[in-house]
Amino acid sequence: MVATHDLRLLAVPEFPLVRAGDDLAALIGDALVRAGMEPATGDVIVVAQKIVSKAEGREVDLATITASPRAAELAAEVGKDPRFVEAVLAESVRVVRSRPNLLIVEHRLGFVMANAGIDQSNVAPQDGVQRILLLPCDPDASAASLRERLSLRFGCDLAVVITDSFGRAWRRGTVGIAIGAAGLASMVDLRGQPDLFGRILEVSIIGLADEVAAAASLLMGQASEGQPVVLLRGLAHTAPELPASSLIRPAAEDLFR
Amino acid sequence: MVATHDLRLLAVPEFPLVRAGDDLAALIGDALVRAGMEPATGDVIVVAQKIVSKAEGREVDLATITASPRAAELAAEVGKDPRFVEAVLAESVRVVRSRPNLLIVEHRLGFVMANAGIDQSNVAPQDGVQRILLLPCDPDASAASLRERLSLRFGCDLAVVITDSFGRAWRRGTVGIAIGAAGLASMVDLRGQPDLFGRILEVSIIGLADEVAAAASLLMGQASEGQPVVLLRGLAHTAPELPASSLIRPAAEDLFR
Repeated sequence: MVATHDLRLLAVPEFPLVRAGDDLAALIGDALVRAGMEPATGDVIVVAQKIVSKAEGREVDLATITASPRAAELAAEVGKDPRFVEAVLAESVRVVRSRPNLLIVEHRLGFVMANAGIDQSNVAPQDGVQRILLLPCDPDASAASLRERLSLRFGCDLAVVITDSFGRAWRRGTVGIAIGAAGLASMVDLRGQPDLFGRILEVSIIGLADEVAAAASLLMGQASEGQPVVLLRGLAHTAPELPASSLIRPAAEDLFR
Repeated sequence: MVATHDLRLLAVPEFPLVRAGDDLAALIGDALVRAGMEPATGDVIVVAQKIVSKAEGREVDLATITASPRAAELAAEVGKDPRFVEAVLAESVRVVRSRPNLLIVEHRLGFVMANAGIDQSNVAPQDGVQRILLLPCDPDASAASLRERLSLRFGCDLAVVITDSFGRAWRRGTVGIAIGAAGLASMVDLRGQPDLFGRILEVSIIGLADEVAAAASLLMGQASEGQPVVLLRGLAHTAPELPASSLIRPAAEDLFR
């Protein structure tokens, strides 16, 4: 595996607010050009989930949701809006843990995460309407589409990673995680490679796209949408391409679900 | 919170092999000077756990360990060397999960991790002796000591993060995690800060030091010790200092132990 020596992450400045139906690849490309940040082969464009979801029209008006009895009961337990809980359940295949102020589910895409990744922050209230924002329908496909469009526009071979902030079972605080990826190995399997002293590494699978997402999150922050696109340059990535879904531990392997 | 716009990570080249008793602060300082990478105020020096443990003499000769009956029984279950399992148990307060080829424990420092963070790769075999490497006794203290020495040497205010690779409950692959930190806010609490539209963020605690560790891991790799020190420049970090131990979820809060 080639080593990365000099890695640079640049936030794309003055990214516009994104609305449903916007052509996100065009917005990202335009913002890169405006900033004089034309990408080159090997660069990774890291994109916050929120703007992907917004462009894909994944905002839902809470008032259009009717809570089922099950959602109402769970909402009372966790202390959330029953309509919000209904939306969480609709996006999920099972509730993993619930308690006051906490609702961890298995998202239909396989992610074990709080509130099915739905949040209410940084969604513009318009005309008094309360909106929530769901994850993209297929984040790996969203990443592949962005990758294709941007690689074509800039005449080079780019990678794209779509990130979200996840909590962890045994660690406090959230970190950036890759929910979608294209053009790079989300997971790098070093098993069978010799270590420095020639022994074979037993267990070494690296969550590369998750490390990329965490790095970019240092620039994206949480409190604003101000920097939802980050250009990462200098990453040596030569392993076979794998989507971000490969990072999801299958339920059958999972000891903690 | 001030935003990070331009983040640069540089691997310190040609870092020497570290041996028990080495003055790690001097080795890191010398390597930075040799590379023309004198650090400046605000920089974060990210250091791989392995070289901290080696300098602190945390290598143990497997032949000096006698397995208890409990270790022998557990070793048979998980398919590992009984002396290795004895070392894992000695470093741990409880076994969280065990099954063939997997042993997850709560380390005495609070980390929930495989094999108590002990590994056998990249430990030089000498005279046919099989060595294992334990975590540093107190990684936050190790980070604080490195920070003090390096800040003094370079006449500036540095931060230090000590990283290790951790598996995750619901994600495949390992990512870099901060096991020790000094001079920065390992955890940044944004609760109570308004989002882009003026609403108050409900739950936003960022695992900043873990994101720093993950970013640096992109350069450190796994298969070699070649790049165990990374200089990170450009991180806007102004929140109150918190050690890496603040990132450990207390057992009482934990729903998955």
